[in-house]
Amino acid sequence: MKIAVDAMGGDHAPDAPVKGALAAIQEQPSLDVILVGEPAAIHRVFNPLPERVTVFPASQVITMEDRPVAAVKTKRDSSMVHMIKLVAGGEAVAGISAGNTGALMTAGLLSLGRMPGIERPALSAILPVLQGWGVMLLDVGANLDPKPSQLVQYALMGSVYCEEVFGMARPRVALLNVGEEAGKGPPLIREAYQWLKSTSLNFIGNLEARELLQGKADVVICDGFSGNIALKLTEGVARDIMSQLRRVMLRNWTTKLATLFLKSGLNELRTLLDYQEYGGAPLLGLDQPIYKCHGASETKAFRIAITMAHQFAVSGSQQRIKERVVGEETNG
Amino acid sequence: MKIAVDAMGGDHAPDAPVKGALAAIQEQPSLDVILVGEPAAIHRVFNPLPERVTVFPASQVITMEDRPVAAVKTKRDSSMVHMIKLVAGGEAVAGISAGNTGALMTAGLLSLGRMPGIERPALSAILPVLQGWGVMLLDVGANLDPKPSQLVQYALMGSVYCEEVFGMARPRVALLNVGEEAGKGPPLIREAYQWLKSTSLNFIGNLEARELLQGKADVVICDGFSGNIALKLTEGVARDIMSQLRRVMLRNWTTKLATLFLKSGLNELRTLLDYQEYGGAPLLGLDQPIYKCHGASETKAFRIAITMAHQFAVSGSQQRIKERVVGEETNG
Repeated sequence: MKIAVDAMGGDHAPDAPVKGALAAIQEQPSLDVILVGEPAAIHRVFNPLPERVTVFPASQVITMEDRPVAAVKTKRDSSMVHMIKLVAGGEAVAGISAGNTGALMTAGLLSLGRMPGIERPALSAILPVLQGWGVMLLDVGANLDPKPSQLVQYALMGSVYCEEVFGMARPRVALLNVGEEAGKGPPLIREAYQWLKSTSLNFIGNLEARELLQGKADVVICDGFSGNIALKLTEGVARDIMSQLRRVMLRNWTTKLATLFLKSGLNELRTLLDYQEYGGAPLLGLDQPIYKCHGASETKAFRIAITMAHQFAVSGSQQRIKERVVGEETNG
Repeated sequence: MKIAVDAMGGDHAPDAPVKGALAAIQEQPSLDVILVGEPAAIHRVFNPLPERVTVFPASQVITMEDRPVAAVKTKRDSSMVHMIKLVAGGEAVAGISAGNTGALMTAGLLSLGRMPGIERPALSAILPVLQGWGVMLLDVGANLDPKPSQLVQYALMGSVYCEEVFGMARPRVALLNVGEEAGKGPPLIREAYQWLKSTSLNFIGNLEARELLQGKADVVICDGFSGNIALKLTEGVARDIMSQLRRVMLRNWTTKLATLFLKSGLNELRTLLDYQEYGGAPLLGLDQPIYKCHGASETKAFRIAITMAHQFAVSGSQQRIKERVVGEETNG
């Protein structure tokens, strides 16, 4: 099965996506990768490429500064647009990019369309949980002004994804809110709360942001504005504290020496907080599987994301998610 | 000058407010405190109280679980309601509580009213900044669904407060948003952005949540829903990382020994992340000064908040904030 990878997207392109692809095919014997991008730039990273890694040429790159809709419409020969088209045309079973998120969503909507029964796709992210596995947060920025019905659809897609991909039996779904009680929050959240209670999902109610990383829920639902803030704040606070900690440890020779004895534990903590361990997160609600990697992704994140996308495609989960979404009544 | 303190509010009441008051009067010779609450409970903490600390009796307590409006209306003999009335009646120049935030805002609105020119008061919070002083975030939950004009009023109040209380020359004001560019975000934020550009404030544009603790802005404006999530998430992530770090350090005797050499640096980091260092935060937009302490406040937080409220009252800042607010055209 072939996975299409945007080789020009992200801060470390084409280096990280190319090396990530090479590492992923080593791990998965049934996986082939199509690297989409400028052939010369790709070959400068590794040459000759192994047989299972092919190059699909694209002369343009959509940058982080590009306006999504305009970029997708005018940069028709960009690596991202061609990557999506390979998935749309069936040449690849899933696609991956670490590039401009808005453009990726736009290109996905234009070429792949929405899953039947879904009004608006959502961008998900996996956040680290300090005891246990991660928590899936969605939407983290695809739709800044959603309706209650759309939050309910996010919950359904996130829940089914966790069942299919992570093998969870009854994923715990919660709403991110300013208090735990049922009546809390703005009308959007209060309405979604009532609606979620009436679904077959394992809805456990509201979750306060203070508890987001404590493993109390598996899928946490929010509007794209708050979700984007929650995602970036988690990343920022973790990065800032770890960097202050580094300063404390490098202060003088005794602190440096002491740090040596803490090294293995600190590395575990760093690994836990490293978004790269989570690879990429799916754009849920598109008709075919597209994964988004963090813009700062290095080789490891691409390797894991490519492997995740491949396993997802092999498992036939996309089809089962579609069936489940159509089965539930969530349209507003 | 007298400061009224709700002696029954918060997780550590009456212990923490009583001891905080005793510590504060030691520091400030011109400060008197009125402790409002159940006299027997207060005297059990310390007896006899020094002359400058008096008790105003109140037989009821508004709890964290109480519904704000109902609680303020039915618990007329509660410590919080009496504390606010002492301020309204001029017996105290400012009031402090670590109790139910919604009830505090409701009681403040009913007894003190709004500052002229302010449509809705805001709850502010001071977050730690890893290099430099803190950042003032508002609103963190008073108003979950504000209008653009209200965000502009928050910006004005926060900016003037930082000038008056922290002596900043031109506080940098930013909007919390999903991207830095002017066109980013939902309509509420885009409209407030345009409006803020036309004021005399030192508006520096949008700030992404990733940079909230980096000291790039002094006053950060957001709606109460996102602000509440940002506040609680910052607190939760910092607490969770520090607790994981403790586990790493207590793992065995070598790690415990190594930790001894890092102690002073780690204590600095812990102090930096300790919300108690920031005392309390003002409910901006009420006609008289009321400070809210974190529910988990201990003696130190009360001591600092009482001192802050006293200095604020002595400085005459409330009057100057009012004059500045009336001077600016921000009504929608």
